[in-house]
Amino acid sequence: MVVVTLTTDFGYGPYVAVMKGIILSMNPAARIVDISHSITPQCVLEGAYVLDSTVQHFRSGENIHLGVVDPGVGTGRKPLVFKCEKGILAGPDNGLLSAAAEGLGIISVHELTNKAWRYGKRSATFHGRDVFAPAVGQLSKGAPADTAGPVVKDWVKLDVRAHERRGDEIRSTIVHVDHFGNVVTTVPGTSMP
Amino acid sequence: MVVVTLTTDFGYGPYVAVMKGIILSMNPAARIVDISHSITPQCVLEGAYVLDSTVQHFRSGENIHLGVVDPGVGTGRKPLVFKCEKGILAGPDNGLLSAAAEGLGIISVHELTNKAWRYGKRSATFHGRDVFAPAVGQLSKGAPADTAGPVVKDWVKLDVRAHERRGDEIRSTIVHVDHFGNVVTTVPGTSMP
Amino acid sequence: MVVVTLTTDFGYGPYVAVMKGIILSMNPAARIVDISHSITPQCVLEGAYVLDSTVQHFRSGENIHLGVVDPGVGTGRKPLVFKCEKGILAGPDNGLLSAAAEGLGIISVHELTNKAWRYGKRSATFHGRDVFAPAVGQLSKGAPADTAGPVVKDWVKLDVRAHERRGDEIRSTIVHVDHFGNVVTTVPGTSMP
Repeated sequence: MVVVTLTTDFGYGPYVAVMKGIILSMNPAARIVDISHSITPQCVLEGAYVLDSTVQHFRSGENIHLGVVDPGVGTGRKPLVFKCEKGILAGPDNGLLSAAAEGLGIISVHELTNKAWRYGKRSATFHGRDVFAPAVGQLSKGAPADTAGPVVKDWVKLDVRAHERRGDEIRSTIVHVDHFGNVVTTVPGTSMP
Repeated sequence: MVVVTLTTDFGYGPYVAVMKGIILSMNPAARIVDISHSITPQCVLEGAYVLDSTVQHFRSGENIHLGVVDPGVGTGRKPLVFKCEKGILAGPDNGLLSAAAEGLGIISVHELTNKAWRYGKRSATFHGRDVFAPAVGQLSKGAPADTAGPVVKDWVKLDVRAHERRGDEIRSTIVHVDHFGNVVTTVPGTSMP
Repeated sequence: MVVVTLTTDFGYGPYVAVMKGIILSMNPAARIVDISHSITPQCVLEGAYVLDSTVQHFRSGENIHLGVVDPGVGTGRKPLVFKCEKGILAGPDNGLLSAAAEGLGIISVHELTNKAWRYGKRSATFHGRDVFAPAVGQLSKGAPADTAGPVVKDWVKLDVRAHERRGDEIRSTIVHVDHFGNVVTTVPGTSMP
């Protein structure tokens, strides 16, 4: 049973539903799970944190994780597919997926150029619909990740645990504020004084 | 595989869950997809826009789309079932479904009067539970849309693209504000100067 | 077909997704339905109201309802499993589940002590992940509720309809404010003047 997870900054509304419609139209058997659509708009670091902290818990069968927090949509940034030991990730080349992909064990990374996987004409603003959802539909039906496109050797990496010690200080970044008001930083628990 | 989509102004909470419970109790195999439950309360036009822009992307198998934005609940407004070429829609007769139904190719429209499809005693405030969810449960199990009730020849139509040019001005209505703060109007892209 | 419902105060984000990942990793066939993740943080009474008013509508097959509104996590409060005539409930012993369980017909109540059902090392803050989600995964695969742990004879009860009449007054508590702004109190409709 293929599980497809979705993580976006789209909010809970029509854009996400369109992506689900496309995926389910291609593969009605896909199980779709929302990780979050409340990522702060265009905050790639928060999306990277959320993906990194959740995808590791999806361990059964073939899991495909789609992340779309994509301020560079419509520019030259590459759409990517990460083929990993414990699943597949798809999303823009802006660091959103890099930490999660490392956690799942990267086998190879591919630029998503396969035009047979497109949905309609590619717009400049909604690659979740035009590029990523149909690719995930194909992958969920068993299309090999290698057929997404050519191997990429270099991709944007984002360190969701980047922090700096200066004497008694730790300088860090807030990556997420949860429903309780807890503030999550880039400092791992093991680094706390 | 039957996909049931839900679009309401109920918020993400117990009312939607009750409808899901009813549908799944009648048809445990139904695949339920939330389109949106964040429609501005009682804003039929926003609901109509969201349905019109999403249901066209659900193309596999038999899709049933339930919309409940229903300020007239408890009045004489009719509950309707639209039998279309590319799916079935159910909801109140207030224009919520008309544009989406046209997009799916209307075959016939029926007043939902079949009392065998009710759930408990019909309340004055929650037809999502009492009338629409059980009807969708029946339809999702294969009950023909024609058995919902008598054919209706006239129903409320709402134009989600209604706008007016006056010289250099375009007068339009805002139908939706998305998670990024983008404002969606009734002016289609093709009408922009 | 097993339906697993989730009710938490976690918000729609990564914590819920982690629980879904754990449940689906153990039982990919489980159908997961969100009842609500918008419970006011740590408001056990609101969670109890939402569960009590929704779980009765899940009537098909074997339904398992997980509730996690758990201000006492990390203290000595017990994790419980309610075996009922019309389903199973799991959650903390703080009154969250008592009204819903009574509605489903309590057969027996068990302390969730079975260590074989744990996920990783139990933290002090996230028993949804460490204790409850893996237990629900086991239960959803058919593990008998009795094997969760020893029978408990006394558990915290919370009356979601507690109110008091004083002459012309009714003294009550607000348990929920819905998306329309309607205020739900503990006064049942049958007690209204």
